[in-house]
Amino acid sequence: MTARKILFLVLDGISDRPCPELAGKTPLQAAKKPNLDAFAREGVCGIMDTIAPGIRPGSDTAHLSLLGYDPHTYYTGRGPLECVGTGITMEPGMIGFRCNYATLTKDGHVSDRRAGRIHDTAALSAAIQEGVDLRRFGVEFVFRSGAGHRAALALKGDGLGHCVSSNDPKKEGVPLLNIIPLLQTEKDKKTALVCNEFVSQAMQILADHKVNQERIHQGLNPATAVLIRGAGEMGNFEPFSTKYGLSGSVICAASLIAGIGTAVGLRRVHVDGITGSQDSNLTGKIEAALQELRSQDFVLVNIKGADESGHDGLAKQKTAFIEKIDTAISPLRTLKDTIIVICADHSTPCTVRDHSADPVPVVIAGEGVRTDDVERFDEISCAQGGLNRTQGLSLLPIALDLINRSHKYGA
Amino acid sequence: MTARKILFLVLDGISDRPCPELAGKTPLQAAKKPNLDAFAREGVCGIMDTIAPGIRPGSDTAHLSLLGYDPHTYYTGRGPLECVGTGITMEPGMIGFRCNYATLTKDGHVSDRRAGRIHDTAALSAAIQEGVDLRRFGVEFVFRSGAGHRAALALKGDGLGHCVSSNDPKKEGVPLLNIIPLLQTEKDKKTALVCNEFVSQAMQILADHKVNQERIHQGLNPATAVLIRGAGEMGNFEPFSTKYGLSGSVICAASLIAGIGTAVGLRRVHVDGITGSQDSNLTGKIEAALQELRSQDFVLVNIKGADESGHDGLAKQKTAFIEKIDTAISPLRTLKDTIIVICADHSTPCTVRDHSADPVPVVIAGEGVRTDDVERFDEISCAQGGLNRTQGLSLLPIALDLINRSHKYGA
Repeated sequence: MTARKILFLVLDGISDRPCPELAGKTPLQAAKKPNLDAFAREGVCGIMDTIAPGIRPGSDTAHLSLLGYDPHTYYTGRGPLECVGTGITMEPGMIGFRCNYATLTKDGHVSDRRAGRIHDTAALSAAIQEGVDLRRFGVEFVFRSGAGHRAALALKGDGLGHCVSSNDPKKEGVPLLNIIPLLQTEKDKKTALVCNEFVSQAMQILADHKVNQERIHQGLNPATAVLIRGAGEMGNFEPFSTKYGLSGSVICAASLIAGIGTAVGLRRVHVDGITGSQDSNLTGKIEAALQELRSQDFVLVNIKGADESGHDGLAKQKTAFIEKIDTAISPLRTLKDTIIVICADHSTPCTVRDHSADPVPVVIAGEGVRTDDVERFDEISCAQGGLNRTQGLSLLPIALDLINRSHKYGA
Repeated sequence: MTARKILFLVLDGISDRPCPELAGKTPLQAAKKPNLDAFAREGVCGIMDTIAPGIRPGSDTAHLSLLGYDPHTYYTGRGPLECVGTGITMEPGMIGFRCNYATLTKDGHVSDRRAGRIHDTAALSAAIQEGVDLRRFGVEFVFRSGAGHRAALALKGDGLGHCVSSNDPKKEGVPLLNIIPLLQTEKDKKTALVCNEFVSQAMQILADHKVNQERIHQGLNPATAVLIRGAGEMGNFEPFSTKYGLSGSVICAASLIAGIGTAVGLRRVHVDGITGSQDSNLTGKIEAALQELRSQDFVLVNIKGADESGHDGLAKQKTAFIEKIDTAISPLRTLKDTIIVICADHSTPCTVRDHSADPVPVVIAGEGVRTDDVERFDEISCAQGGLNRTQGLSLLPIALDLINRSHKYGA
């Protein structure tokens, strides 16, 4: 018997280092997680460098790698994937940026990099889309609101580069930075020029916008400037369905992951109440995954909350959230006809409060999988597993082979 | 808690194969080495291909790899690194050679490839530097004495290649070889021409030199010729401090390792009584390492003696020397704030009497390191470790990540 479907369950940042708060255990070691451990017992385990040993992955480069798209080829910056995630249709070669609405003082200093955590910025973004004119550069643009104070900007035109700096000073009380080309090429110079013009025109439009007048009236920080960063050129992604001959869906809260999924042609599935945080609707995500697997060959589910605890340095909170995940995934235990791959995209050690390059645990379970002696799903136990130490780019090809959809190389 | 410093302890050639003399154990398995085993117990272990599986490393290519400089990019021959090790300032593109002083008979046959193991050759080398004239080729040179009968030659000029043969016949009783281009390129032809001219002019200068007259008078073999080999072009090494953002030192006896360290910008530390042999001042090396770690971010210590035993096929001597190393490194057991990496650069099996491609054991110990069940530092035990099988080029990136100095790739 061979399974016909693949489920990737990516537990964002769940992997860790020994935590003093947990008597030297990692949160995965400390957590009670009968379901994750059952998968470890029944499947084949290993550790995995999502990019390469010693390379500290971002969630974006890691997910590209897990989907089999080498980030060294496809990744130039976070911007274009954020653009896709906010719903902008990005063509190969377009330049994308992540944006924040921010508040400036009268003398032009940044006083709040998130404009009082403004949300519902659709009217502001529409005004910018309507009012900013970059035609004298031969450039079209799309500007769109994201979640909360976030937005995305995409530029389209000939001769645009992506190696430009940001106008975000990354702190408050100082002026916006001028955007400069990072390489002295004509195309990067042009993009820098266009960006500075965009920022300047947007500022004029925002200055007197009624949404801001209303916010000031209410004592809230107005959104008087747009910070832009994460410049990157949209890659030419071979569609997932062409690359692997599989249909597929992505289930996630983060627009960045959604953007990656959409960029490779995965269907984004809406689930009520998912937040990318500890309070997310995990049960809903798992139900949606089971539902999708009825019609799709491949489903990627990203669960984000453990990463958040890692960034906050909260080992006990992370442990508790792992237990919550474990309960939520219980319905997957009886899933048939599916190769289930559970891993992290990177480690987010509580002692580091950021991503690290430590390899992540991975388990592959399902029909036909060779098993091993590993009984627990954690960083230390999985290092003894039958997969040994593998790499992110290998994971989908391995799963593809387990559903008999890989191509024979040779005769 | 995260360590801030990195110590690489490279036990040159310590790795081995099962030795009949040791009832089938390797010297590392046979030795009593409580300190090395303690590091294995407390740290994460693995085996490592310094270059790649099945590739038999030299000490030079292995050390380049361990420092994160891919030898396929940076290594063209041993010569330029020996030049740096003898104190010659090598600019990228210069061609370097290792040299020996040798004795020729009156009819031009090599009678002693080491000129009676002459030492203190400074006056001879000064005479060659002063007397040889290569200006008609548009070539400048630096010739400098190394340890004992050794020396180094560096050529600087336009249009010089490094693919040339050696004049060393590698045996005695035969004439010097003519140096020939190994590729039929103009630049290799030019280098061959320049080298033959250098050898010829040097021979004339050495013929009547008073140092040689004195040696003949004393019944010693005179240094009447220079053997040159190991041609290579000096690579364009990105400084270690730029590449990793770390200051660093190297502690070693061998000029080759010193050359590699100097080439990448590590500070070479002088220690009294270090010989690169069994009688070396190991305690002094470890003391110097501890001293350096007070001011430097990274220290590489190379201990050479075990390699020598391997080359000599002396398994029991190698075992005894391992025990001597173990005693000497005892002060490292209480070292704080430091990621300690212990490994070999290559195996030097006593049964082979030369380097082999067998992977070497490696342990990484220190704050934040995930541990495993390995209790002994040897080739067999470490193969069960949590690092699994890793590669030399990954080692520094992994250590860098453990001190939180790696860069995030992505967002």
